[in-house]
Amino acid sequence: MSKSIATDPDRLLPAEPAVRQVARELVEVVEGFPILSPHGHIDAAMIRDNTPFPDPATLLVSPDHYVTRLIHASGVGLDQLRVGGTTDVDARTVWRHFCRAWPLFDGTASGYWLRSEFVNVFGLDDSKITEANADALFDDLQATLEDPRFRPRQLFSDFNIEVLATTDDPLDDLAAHAALRQDAAFGGRVLPTFRPDAYLNAFTPDFADRVERLVATAGEGREGLDGYLLALENRRQFFIQHGAVSADHGVRTPLTLKLERREAEELFDKARRGTATAQDRDRFEAYMMYEMARMSVADGLVMTIHPGSFRNHHGPSFDRFGADTGHDIPVAVNYTEGIRPLLEDFGTAKDFHLVLFTLDETVFSRELAPLAGFYPSVYIGAPWWFLDAPDAMLRFRSAVTETAGFSRSSGFIDDTRAFCSIPARHDASRRVEASFLARLVAERRITLERARELIVDIVDAAPRRVFKL
Amino acid sequence: MSKSIATDPDRLLPAEPAVRQVARELVEVVEGFPILSPHGHIDAAMIRDNTPFPDPATLLVSPDHYVTRLIHASGVGLDQLRVGGTTDVDARTVWRHFCRAWPLFDGTASGYWLRSEFVNVFGLDDSKITEANADALFDDLQATLEDPRFRPRQLFSDFNIEVLATTDDPLDDLAAHAALRQDAAFGGRVLPTFRPDAYLNAFTPDFADRVERLVATAGEGREGLDGYLLALENRRQFFIQHGAVSADHGVRTPLTLKLERREAEELFDKARRGTATAQDRDRFEAYMMYEMARMSVADGLVMTIHPGSFRNHHGPSFDRFGADTGHDIPVAVNYTEGIRPLLEDFGTAKDFHLVLFTLDETVFSRELAPLAGFYPSVYIGAPWWFLDAPDAMLRFRSAVTETAGFSRSSGFIDDTRAFCSIPARHDASRRVEASFLARLVAERRITLERARELIVDIVDAAPRRVFKL
Amino acid sequence: MSKSIATDPDRLLPAEPAVRQVARELVEVVEGFPILSPHGHIDAAMIRDNTPFPDPATLLVSPDHYVTRLIHASGVGLDQLRVGGTTDVDARTVWRHFCRAWPLFDGTASGYWLRSEFVNVFGLDDSKITEANADALFDDLQATLEDPRFRPRQLFSDFNIEVLATTDDPLDDLAAHAALRQDAAFGGRVLPTFRPDAYLNAFTPDFADRVERLVATAGEGREGLDGYLLALENRRQFFIQHGAVSADHGVRTPLTLKLERREAEELFDKARRGTATAQDRDRFEAYMMYEMARMSVADGLVMTIHPGSFRNHHGPSFDRFGADTGHDIPVAVNYTEGIRPLLEDFGTAKDFHLVLFTLDETVFSRELAPLAGFYPSVYIGAPWWFLDAPDAMLRFRSAVTETAGFSRSSGFIDDTRAFCSIPARHDASRRVEASFLARLVAERRITLERARELIVDIVDAAPRRVFKL
Repeated sequence: MSKSIATDPDRLLPAEPAVRQVARELVEVVEGFPILSPHGHIDAAMIRDNTPFPDPATLLVSPDHYVTRLIHASGVGLDQLRVGGTTDVDARTVWRHFCRAWPLFDGTASGYWLRSEFVNVFGLDDSKITEANADALFDDLQATLEDPRFRPRQLFSDFNIEVLATTDDPLDDLAAHAALRQDAAFGGRVLPTFRPDAYLNAFTPDFADRVERLVATAGEGREGLDGYLLALENRRQFFIQHGAVSADHGVRTPLTLKLERREAEELFDKARRGTATAQDRDRFEAYMMYEMARMSVADGLVMTIHPGSFRNHHGPSFDRFGADTGHDIPVAVNYTEGIRPLLEDFGTAKDFHLVLFTLDETVFSRELAPLAGFYPSVYIGAPWWFLDAPDAMLRFRSAVTETAGFSRSSGFIDDTRAFCSIPARHDASRRVEASFLARLVAERRITLERARELIVDIVDAAPRRVFKL
Repeated sequence: MSKSIATDPDRLLPAEPAVRQVARELVEVVEGFPILSPHGHIDAAMIRDNTPFPDPATLLVSPDHYVTRLIHASGVGLDQLRVGGTTDVDARTVWRHFCRAWPLFDGTASGYWLRSEFVNVFGLDDSKITEANADALFDDLQATLEDPRFRPRQLFSDFNIEVLATTDDPLDDLAAHAALRQDAAFGGRVLPTFRPDAYLNAFTPDFADRVERLVATAGEGREGLDGYLLALENRRQFFIQHGAVSADHGVRTPLTLKLERREAEELFDKARRGTATAQDRDRFEAYMMYEMARMSVADGLVMTIHPGSFRNHHGPSFDRFGADTGHDIPVAVNYTEGIRPLLEDFGTAKDFHLVLFTLDETVFSRELAPLAGFYPSVYIGAPWWFLDAPDAMLRFRSAVTETAGFSRSSGFIDDTRAFCSIPARHDASRRVEASFLARLVAERRITLERARELIVDIVDAAPRRVFKL
Repeated sequence: MSKSIATDPDRLLPAEPAVRQVARELVEVVEGFPILSPHGHIDAAMIRDNTPFPDPATLLVSPDHYVTRLIHASGVGLDQLRVGGTTDVDARTVWRHFCRAWPLFDGTASGYWLRSEFVNVFGLDDSKITEANADALFDDLQATLEDPRFRPRQLFSDFNIEVLATTDDPLDDLAAHAALRQDAAFGGRVLPTFRPDAYLNAFTPDFADRVERLVATAGEGREGLDGYLLALENRRQFFIQHGAVSADHGVRTPLTLKLERREAEELFDKARRGTATAQDRDRFEAYMMYEMARMSVADGLVMTIHPGSFRNHHGPSFDRFGADTGHDIPVAVNYTEGIRPLLEDFGTAKDFHLVLFTLDETVFSRELAPLAGFYPSVYIGAPWWFLDAPDAMLRFRSAVTETAGFSRSSGFIDDTRAFCSIPARHDASRRVEASFLARLVAERRITLERARELIVDIVDAAPRRVFKL
């Protein structure tokens, strides 16, 4: 097997030899540290049941919109990739499309971790990923996936994962999480995350039904907004009892609003009756962000906000293949004004942790670093989504550190649906952090001794501290 | 003659020796490749007629607002530079102003290619460009320009230009293009580009007259919106018959709109009657972008959009010197929402190519890379206008590649009015692309072997593919 | 004493050895140059009276919101830091909080100059700045501060300050400035700056009273808008007589407006009667920016604008601790459209200098460089506020230089309240400028010879030219 760039000890490290040497030393410091993943999209049941992985295409391609979208952009229909549960073609056809498109991933974030996954998890020779070789590769990978050593639990252990948070519906019974906690044979921590978007956005399909179920389940017989808020509080408690440390919010904008009770009740009624306008929807969601912050102050769940994505941009693709199919597109956001009502009341509340994410890089230096540089509650979320990429991570650090230092950021978030990509992502993050610190050392802005402490803080202490792990 | 930085083999390459070495190798790979220029502002008649260049000031200074504006900023009136066809001073005076201002161009994009042009095209000693030396230099250059080897056709060949696209009015007779195609002695391809801005923006002076002429010429006797749309379709066909591969659109914003026929007709009527409000103008232009996309899907012309420039910012200068005199100033744009109506209907249309340009760098990572990373029709335009500059090109690559890879960008666009600057611009672009790839190689993100393929793709295959050359 | 990074001759210089060598040479060129500080917040009376500095906490921590905010973010109340004149704790307690928080400043701009100040001004061993050592350090510093060599005038001379501009209320009697000008024993120039914000923003507390006093003082008995404008003109003259070279404007947005006299009078009346709406306030302020430009054209004061800060973001902190307490948070700005009315009429006015600052980095390449690259009046302000930081300075240079070159920027502005940080800030700026130029030399974009001229222009000639020193 030819030597792959994915195994090169200097991968992602800066080229200048003296800086690279420092970066190497810093990478070594944290090499053996466990993986802490406080936000992501892995299915807890898969780990509980130790479900064997399906074929390579179904594992690596069809469900992951970071992979399918670039293949789609090259002219392959989503129906040819079994996206959204479609089965117009077989898995092997999907795999052939992937192998043909593989060169398009060069230089991309997804290409980086896919290569690492192929080489370092599955032991492939990455020079063999070619269209001509697609079928043979499919068979090889299939054989590997059938090996018991490639079951989720073994990999969880091999990957050295200590904490893995999932993302869950407020009415989820969290049975998988409960089972894992009680399973003496399982050493990791799999934590649920409270994600109530569908119960807060009045335009969600079936909003009224969802809310009705929520209130029926946990409203203690109360009605109206009272019952709704109480039910949310109760479900948060249920999540906390099952180990949850955070509540996550995917919203259109970072707007927050403190409303008079009466207006809140009116908006809630309109939302349930299906008569809310777009503006009503926005105001209600903004109001609920305020309420969610209030609840976080009371119950201690870390509040995380992911705004600024225009979801399902291409209607025809959404209609046929559903959500999360590659065409959520970012828009500019205004955190400074949007988040103010929330921070006015809760920004300095004791033990409140609010992690702010963005897809709009311009807010890093302009808004997030200044906010986190003053408010004790605010932490700057790791570069999200399209930004899980070495250059973008460096831009992030460069943009926020000079104002907010290292203590005000969240630590790395992998946010992934791709279980087997987790080690590659965390490894990449550590290498990039080491590269940034090494440059500061070379420029005499911090000492090497201090850089060795900081890399430990960034990789290990920060996520524990910020997410109360 | 002292050695100039403009001839240094390592110009624009990164300083770190190992990275520079890789970059050098990559530059060598594409050194002999022909120039493909799919969008620019050269006059086809100049090439047809092989018109001798006028004096140095009239060739290099007066008509190029990238050159005059910095001299103007230094306190020299546009009337002193013969801008906009004024003749208050003679060419030699303009040249003296230029030589006095020459040091102000250090570090600028325009300064880079001007220096390269002086040294590598005209064989000047760039250390002699001084105010004291202005008259002697004028005479030297004048003598050079009278040499038959410095006629357009010889330079076209010397520059190794294979394809050069011009920008043309829809009613242009394209006689120069026709003559060049039929001229056996001319080996290049000079392609017209359909640029209908003045016929789509209701606030254009003489809009009604222009539209009337358009419809009279190509409307086949039809009236109203029908005749107008048909005339545009017919003129596009005329351009295609003369070799056009693309239609270009300079618009205020990236807004697009699908309208009911009735509203479209009403807006068209208002536009012709001169009663359109600013909002009507915007809606009509947005609607026409939708129609232009529809036509591109039908006839195959690549659609390119250049939005976000506040044209003629300084009214008094516009009143006296006209458009394109150095004070078009960019504004922020919102592509994600603006372009959506168009992409909803045509984003996945077969063989539709839509190249999106921006002057607002923030949309590279936030909007353009995600759009091009999903829609098969969307390509990311090379960094436009104020961004024809090494640092900006690197920021561009860094911003888009991690999401969209290399296959979704347009390849280099020189967009120039300055014929003699073409080799310097393409050389600079190739060197910057090589520098970016060399860093990825050094960071083990791509292999050297792959970088050698990618530089060929970027420089040669991408423009052919994206612009259907 | 261990060797500190703050004394390393290569601090802030790029790591690549050949580039660093060039940068070192460029730093040496300007090492002995005097400090020109054309905008800042030092108190002239302190220099006049040669007031001994108070204790370390009162000198370095409590009054400087760049220092207190990160300590506040770490969970220490502003009341624990004696912010806003509060005295809930003693200075030694504040100092302990600072020493505990000191590691949080690693990698920040404030941390850089604080360290430099400790080591290079106060001769401290920076490895001794620890929580355990806080009291001993306090005593050491206290002893140093009592040494007559650490009085303002001696430091003014030791720091090699030639020009220091203060920021002053239009009704300030400028007695301190007058005394310093007449003091033969004082060799420096301490210049007042006209800062009329509180008299232009209708929502300023006591707006009506302020305006009444202004008009009574300098309105020559005229009433209404006439008297107000005349009073402003007269106070500007008073400032000019006392050495002022500029008028500074801290505004919410970069909006400017030319209004009909009648609307201006109506807005002025509403403002004084306290009936102005938020929109009235904005329109009046925008109108007054236009009037301020008109006055600058007439009287020659350089006009500087600092827009885009959402002041006093956290209401409860403002209510208790007042303004400038660490929670002014930037918002996005639109200079292109906002500044246009002003530039339409005054953009090419003879000898008018307009320095535009921004906290929104996106406008550097998109708006400020193009504006300054055309309008002779417009200069690009040095990266302001959160951007007094090496990486941000480099981003700034990279963003503006390719369009506007070096001649269109203002030169360094320290904008500081921390007198003892001035040398560190200017030293940092010079090192970063040298680093940027050294890269251009290494990439053969300018010659070393030219870089040696440019560093002198940037450090010395530019501030003299732009601020008419």
